[in-house]
Order: sequence, then C-alpha cells, then structure tokens
Amino acid sequence: MDVDKMRAGLSERSEHDGWHVPGLEPVTVEPGRVVVRVEVSDALVNVAQTLHGGAAATLVDVVGTFAIMTADRHSRPGVSTDLNVTWLAPAPLGEFVLVDATVLKTGRSMAFVTADIRRESDGVLSVQGRMTKALGPPPS
Amino acid sequence: MDVDKMRAGLSERSEHDGWHVPGLEPVTVEPGRVVVRVEVSDALVNVAQTLHGGAAATLVDVVGTFAIMTADRHSRPGVSTDLNVTWLAPAPLGEFVLVDATVLKTGRSMAFVTADIRRESDGVLSVQGRMTKALGPPPS
Amino acid sequence: MDVDKMRAGLSERSEHDGWHVPGLEPVTVEPGRVVVRVEVSDALVNVAQTLHGGAAATLVDVVGTFAIMTADRHSRPGVSTDLNVTWLAPAPLGEFVLVDATVLKTGRSMAFVTADIRRESDGVLSVQGRMTKALGPPPS
Amino acid sequence: MDVDKMRAGLSERSEHDGWHVPGLEPVTVEPGRVVVRVEVSDALVNVAQTLHGGAAATLVDVVGTFAIMTADRHSRPGVSTDLNVTWLAPAPLGEFVLVDATVLKTGRSMAFVTADIRRESDGVLSVQGRMTKALGPPPS
Repeated sequence: MDVDKMRAGLSERSEHDGWHVPGLEPVTVEPGRVVVRVEVSDALVNVAQTLHGGAAATLVDVVGTFAIMTADRHSRPGVSTDLNVTWLAPAPLGEFVLVDATVLKTGRSMAFVTADIRRESDGVLSVQGRMTKALGPPPS
Repeated sequence: MDVDKMRAGLSERSEHDGWHVPGLEPVTVEPGRVVVRVEVSDALVNVAQTLHGGAAATLVDVVGTFAIMTADRHSRPGVSTDLNVTWLAPAPLGEFVLVDATVLKTGRSMAFVTADIRRESDGVLSVQGRMTKALGPPPS
Repeated sequence: MDVDKMRAGLSERSEHDGWHVPGLEPVTVEPGRVVVRVEVSDALVNVAQTLHGGAAATLVDVVGTFAIMTADRHSRPGVSTDLNVTWLAPAPLGEFVLVDATVLKTGRSMAFVTADIRRESDGVLSVQGRMTKALGPPPS
Repeated sequence: MDVDKMRAGLSERSEHDGWHVPGLEPVTVEPGRVVVRVEVSDALVNVAQTLHGGAAATLVDVVGTFAIMTADRHSRPGVSTDLNVTWLAPAPLGEFVLVDATVLKTGRSMAFVTADIRRESDGVLSVQGRMTKALGPPPS
C-alpha cells in the first residue's frame, strides 16, 4: 500500500465528477483502517437539515472501500455485494463528522468492513454500517 | 394522500440543494407504491462507469420514503433506523433504471418498505433494498 | 436438479441432529423457488409465545439455501456471507407459516435469495429476509 | 438492573422449552454489555460441522436482547425490527465461541445493539451482527 497515493486518491474522490461526497479530509490512512473528516454541508443534508441517509450510506461505501484497498495486497477496490446501515443519532448541518472504517477481514476473494460515523463535537455515534465486497481475481 | 402533490414533491426532490439524485421522473404514484425512472448519468456513476453504490442506496431511501408517505394517512416521512442493499448486476452509464418501492407495512409508529432497481432495457434486477423508519407521533 | 431428492433433503433437514427447524413440509420445489410450510410449535417460540427471531432467521437461511441449490446447476449450497431479516408482524404459537424463498440471482461464484414468511391463516407478511452466499468453485 | 437476575435469566434461557441455544455461560454482565461463552456442540452445527448460520443469528438475537435489557432502566426486552449478520470465518464443532454484545444506543422507544462472535482458541472474528428493537411503552 502506498499511503500517500491513498490519501491523494481520497481527496480526489471528493472532487471528481461522478457520485461523490464533497469535502473529504483524510485523517488516518493505515493498513486496514481509514478515518475521514467531513463537514455536514448544505450539499449533504435532507429536508430536516441533518446528514442525509443516502450521504451516510455513500460515506460507508466510499471510506469502507478505501479501507479495503489499504488492506488488500493488490489494492483491489472490489465490487459491493451487501451494505447495511443503522441510524442512531442525527448529525446536523454545520457539524463535522468522523467516518472511521475498519476492515474486519480480507481474503482471497471477499472483503468485509465496518464503519462508524461520529459527531466530532460530542463523539456521539450517529451511524454504523457494514459492507461486503467481492474482490474478483487478483491482477496477473 | 394527494397524488399530484406527491408527484410534484418527487420532481422537486430531484432539484433541491441538499443531498439528492438528479433527474427523477415519477412513473407510478399510488397508495403504498412509487415507481421512479432515472438515467444513470455522469453524476450518478462510480469509477467503473456504473451506478454508484451510494446513489443506489440514496434511491432506495428517497423513493422508499415517498412510498411510505403515500401509505401513511398523515403522510409522515419518518426517520430511518435501518437500510440494507444488495447488488446483483451493474447499471451502466447511459442506461435508464426503474426504482420500484413497495410498502411492506405501515403501522402506528413504524413503517417498512422494499425497493427493486431494474435496468429498463432488459429488466434485469440490479439492486434490492429494504428500509425501516420510525414514524414519530402523528400530528395533533 | 432432482426435485424428489430436494424434497427428501428438505424433510430430512428437518429431522437431523444439528441446528434445524423441526416440522418442515415442502409445498413447492421448482428451479429457483422453494416454499415450505411449518407449524409455530412449542419448539419455535420465544417467551411471548410467538415465532422466535432466531427461528425466523434460521428458516430464511435453510429454505433460502434449498432455493439456491435448485437454481445452481451444480446444486451447490454455498457459504453465507450476509443475511438480513425484518420483522413485520408476529406469528403466534399454533399458527402455520409459509416460507417462500425466491432466488434473485445465481452466478458463477455468488448467489442471492429473498424469503417471505407469511401467516397461513390470513396471509399477513410476518418476516422478510435476504441472504447472500459465496458458492465456491464448481465441482470438477 | 439486577445482575444476578440477568445471569440467572441467561442460564435459564439456555434450558427452556422454546427456541434456544443450549449451553450459554454468562461471562460478563454489565450495563450495556453481555458476553456469553458457548460450545459449538452437535446441536449447533450445519452439515459442514461448523456453527450453523441460524444458530449464529439466534446468538446475536438472544445475547443482544440481554444486553439491551441491562441498559434499559425498565429492563424491556423489546420487539426486534431488524437484524443483520455477516459471516467471516467458520467456528468448527468442538470449538468454544464468545458472543460479545454491546448496546450502541438505547432511547425512549428504540434500542440498538452490535454483537461479535469470536473463536475462543485464536480470537478470530467469526460473525458480526447488529439488531434494532422497538421497546414499546415503559411499564406504568
């Protein structure tokens, strides 16, 4: 794993033209764990002015995928098969959140990751998610 | 339920400033079921140029919430507690998909919805998701 | 797929010594779909005298696995990676339920199945679940 | 919370006549967390002679429910709305596993719990699950 490349990738991911969450700041990038900080900006909220469920699910997917890439020796992003998300507390507009993704297991063909989203101001757990990815064949 | 109001709401939801999926076209809006058509545009894809997992999760959330509102006599959108998504086949850039959300149950305090996302061209199931929402107290 | 063998397997599964649900009656066994009828007996209930959540999850797993075997040309049972269950209505002691499992997709290496559990007396949906399995290599 | 009563309840739960996992030994019972040790006996395995998926789901449900009761000031067991389970590694016959359930949040009307199942011999994570329960009205 090239940590600097990963950090750069995370920041770029936050700017590209496809589906993305704007404003990701890498906090920790190490083998099997990635932590990202992001502001709950205008672009991320629902009508109640809190972090949208779809934005939360996207954060679990994006940050979880980076964590898997740091743990796989071929840095494969894989293809998701399953994702689940539970909401525990709202993250209001203007708040910063920390998305902390930890790889549970990475094997020959499958990888598994869990992610917590916490409010930075008080540390309260806002979202917990888990994702399973099929890694496909290693590059030959 | 005011169907015209719901249709207008769905189209507006697709234009507002917060987290949203651009380009939703309501196809069916009836009590307990909402079907929406959407193009897999540049804004919705991942690096593989297929519908992003986070966009799929957002579609389950947004269209599922509208379906719940059509089924609840107070049109409450509720607050999500759980969402799960399974990916079965990719939906490539330029394809149109149909998001078909059906309410499984709506009660006094909880509502449950399932949603299928199919490719329009060949009818293949791309995503299946389910969501649970707490409805909160009815308006007095 | 040998349907008679599958039916026999389902009935045996209901009698063996490991973790199992007693009393499974095969109703429908066809490629990609298996329906089983089972009584909510003393052995299947929780302290509230309704179908235990763990029994419901086991039914999704067992009947879903049989459905996958009917759809895979090597009849592979696979190894589960993910299962989710949502409870919608209780199934009380003495009631019969129908567990209806439909394969969503079966591919080279992964299979996906959804299952509904309905009360026989009134057709009310009690449980909905979904399961993902890794199939492993085909037998050589 | 009466810890002794909880411990006794856990042991009894393991012996009663309804759907249950035999052989639960309480290891830790404290507010918001319950750890149970259990042998992967003949009664808990699938045809591959490893912990059955349905037994794992039942352990998440049963131990998770006890953890919620230790955290709720009315000791309400609640009614499950959602459960998800991911399998990471098998737990073979004869192995002991530790089921470690931690409450993520308990509120006025909903409670959330996560549970890890690890092999005792090598500490490998075998299963991770999460459950959401509706608590119902507090006793008057």
